[in-house]
Amino acid sequence: MQQRIFIKEVPKCVGEKVRIAGWVNIKRDHGKLVFVDIRDNSAMVQLVGGEILSNLRPQDAIEIIGSVQKRPTAMINKNILTGEVEIEVQESKVLSKAEELPFDMGQEDLNVELPTLLDWRSLSLRHPKVTAIFKVQETIINGFREILKQDSFTEIQVPAIVPSATEGGAEVFKVKYFDKDAFLGQSPQMYKQIMVGVFERVFTLAHAYRAEPSVTTRHLTEYLSLDAEMGFIESFTEIMEEVEKMIRYIFQKLNSERAEELKIFGATTPQLSAKIPQLKMREAQQIIFERTSRDNRQEPDLEPEDEKEICRYAIEKYGSELIFITHYPTKKRPFYTYPDPQDPEYTCSFDLLGRGLEWVTGGQRINDYQQLLKNINEWGNKPEDFELYLQAFKFGMPPEGGFALGAERITMQILGLKNIREASLFPRDMERIDQRLSVLKPKDKKNEKN
Amino acid sequence: MQQRIFIKEVPKCVGEKVRIAGWVNIKRDHGKLVFVDIRDNSAMVQLVGGEILSNLRPQDAIEIIGSVQKRPTAMINKNILTGEVEIEVQESKVLSKAEELPFDMGQEDLNVELPTLLDWRSLSLRHPKVTAIFKVQETIINGFREILKQDSFTEIQVPAIVPSATEGGAEVFKVKYFDKDAFLGQSPQMYKQIMVGVFERVFTLAHAYRAEPSVTTRHLTEYLSLDAEMGFIESFTEIMEEVEKMIRYIFQKLNSERAEELKIFGATTPQLSAKIPQLKMREAQQIIFERTSRDNRQEPDLEPEDEKEICRYAIEKYGSELIFITHYPTKKRPFYTYPDPQDPEYTCSFDLLGRGLEWVTGGQRINDYQQLLKNINEWGNKPEDFELYLQAFKFGMPPEGGFALGAERITMQILGLKNIREASLFPRDMERIDQRLSVLKPKDKKNEKN
Repeated sequence: MQQRIFIKEVPKCVGEKVRIAGWVNIKRDHGKLVFVDIRDNSAMVQLVGGEILSNLRPQDAIEIIGSVQKRPTAMINKNILTGEVEIEVQESKVLSKAEELPFDMGQEDLNVELPTLLDWRSLSLRHPKVTAIFKVQETIINGFREILKQDSFTEIQVPAIVPSATEGGAEVFKVKYFDKDAFLGQSPQMYKQIMVGVFERVFTLAHAYRAEPSVTTRHLTEYLSLDAEMGFIESFTEIMEEVEKMIRYIFQKLNSERAEELKIFGATTPQLSAKIPQLKMREAQQIIFERTSRDNRQEPDLEPEDEKEICRYAIEKYGSELIFITHYPTKKRPFYTYPDPQDPEYTCSFDLLGRGLEWVTGGQRINDYQQLLKNINEWGNKPEDFELYLQAFKFGMPPEGGFALGAERITMQILGLKNIREASLFPRDMERIDQRLSVLKPKDKKNEKN
Repeated sequence: MQQRIFIKEVPKCVGEKVRIAGWVNIKRDHGKLVFVDIRDNSAMVQLVGGEILSNLRPQDAIEIIGSVQKRPTAMINKNILTGEVEIEVQESKVLSKAEELPFDMGQEDLNVELPTLLDWRSLSLRHPKVTAIFKVQETIINGFREILKQDSFTEIQVPAIVPSATEGGAEVFKVKYFDKDAFLGQSPQMYKQIMVGVFERVFTLAHAYRAEPSVTTRHLTEYLSLDAEMGFIESFTEIMEEVEKMIRYIFQKLNSERAEELKIFGATTPQLSAKIPQLKMREAQQIIFERTSRDNRQEPDLEPEDEKEICRYAIEKYGSELIFITHYPTKKRPFYTYPDPQDPEYTCSFDLLGRGLEWVTGGQRINDYQQLLKNINEWGNKPEDFELYLQAFKFGMPPEGGFALGAERITMQILGLKNIREASLFPRDMERIDQRLSVLKPKDKKNEKN
């Protein structure tokens, strides 16, 4: 039997007979002449036939044998890879028949509301515009990995089940772990810091969990955290330099490999100046005050409105859609954040903001055991919950720091999606785990003792 | 200030002054002459000095400036990258002082029992032989990714929180999810199958959870599952071909990139014949019976002793340390396993065995909606727990199948480790989450209602 080829190879086979397989994307039935767009994992191509195609339905999985031919000049579509050819079908076989679709999958946009999009997730993900989101996401993740590997970072695998709710009990998911309680980690922070002692430079792709009892357009209860950490730094600006290098690499990779997908969304990667500008948080607040008369100069953090305003300022002043805000107040950052030796009320920490939202967060960490122990107590935590973490600092931890970004958040920000759920294949939130939770049965009390 | 260089660059700098940073691995104090081995993320090198080095202690994080010189001929060590040079230290600075070590980290083997190894995990991971395990694991994972990407697989990210305990309640971890119950996924199986409908060929690195209430040398409660799934297959042998291709690629990569680490363990990648041999399970049982007089020919699965015996047979008969066993009984496999059309009592499934244990498991899946629905009921599951999964099969799911392997298991098998916990950075089992669970407080009843 003839070997199947991927659709992207079809344009090279004009005049030849080929065998391809894929899903019916759209059927246009003109009676005697039927056109079908078929997609596989590589591309989409137009089939031409008569009766042989007339019984097909969108999403049918099919296999066909046909002759590749040049399209008539008037029918050429320069916008797609296979737009100059079509396949005249000689044999067609349905491998798996689709039911009638609950909504039209054949338009450029999938015009359904978010709950419908998610209720029919196994189907809606097949819409080319939805699929494109996850091609972009894969490229972002690959970019993160590639640039860090180039810079001698080692990829590590860290656990999600953790022994204690170290960042406050309320927003942590609890796991029944045999006859004990365990928790789902809110970030791989502790583990990546420990691993600096082993590999010096590490990164990880970690599932992170936040039991925030609110529904927003920017938060998921389970998300993918892209985390990196590096030792033997001279100052926290080295970490920002690594972030900038990574961001530029990802943008470049998206523009060269995902131009088509960006175009579908009318999206561009953020415009950057020669160097991403930096402002201390207090400087940013002063600028915002001068621009808007909104006086948040004593506030310990930037408000959402402030983040938007400072992004506008960065574009106007520096021609950069991204800006680093540094030196957040010590008391507003986690206990491990390194205080600025010049002014210990503020930290050697940063957020990278873009298009009105946080993209990356990071900073230098305290690497002195005694200072860390003191802070754990001051922040109201218990040292015994940090045993393995503290152990790493007893045995020579060099000056170090790192950063983290959420894969879904960055995808959303680059593509201009309205809701972060669109950037997660199977988003979890307070109201949904695949199905709407309102249809799930309530917590089963009788199994509690198992 | 002089730029720091990585230690691997040192041999190129004979006659030059360099600045390096890292951890003290071993100190050999001969009074006037002190030798220190210092390691960073790239390599280890010998420092020479007098008093300037005498106060150093193993695991101190230090920074030094010194002159690179050729070692005296008698002192050359051809076994290590930097064995022909040493650095005469002019300046030394302790960045972070280490406490006295609880055990000797300076020997080739870290001679401590497993509980000690894990109680001191943040330290023990820094021992070069322990570190080597995770360099090997990183290479295995990279090999998995690279070969599948080459073969047009898309990497996907799937969630670990799942709405129902689909593979039986007893061995599943329960999560308190706001006011509902959720669970930790036992595998990414359902999601990778759904995603075949989207990307046709997918793979994922997923955390998988098994609440097995037993402590063995081969099981973890949280492990990394390397999962792949492919659509439009002609038969399940295509999946085995992909597995064989992946395994060969990983072995080749290990031999070219991790020869040094394999050598530390005296390990070799398994010997393979031109093609990995295949036997049906019933054939294997017959052979075992003939070789050992142990009659398990009616058993529905291979016993651990059978797996060992058939691996011995594969070496003797085929010169292969790996062997595919196929056609496991339908009733012993999950509900989605594709029955052999020739003999529906058995399935188009396989395990890849090696060195006495399972390395990879896989098979073709049922892609017909009605048959799947029927099996879900027959296997005692509830269709409503599979809503999103079943949805994928209503809309044209081609013939498909896939495979999975545990990253820790493969690492253990290649290096010949005695316990799978050694192949996990922070292993979780019934008795330990970082700390021994016996020291954790029991389940906190008063927070139950939160």
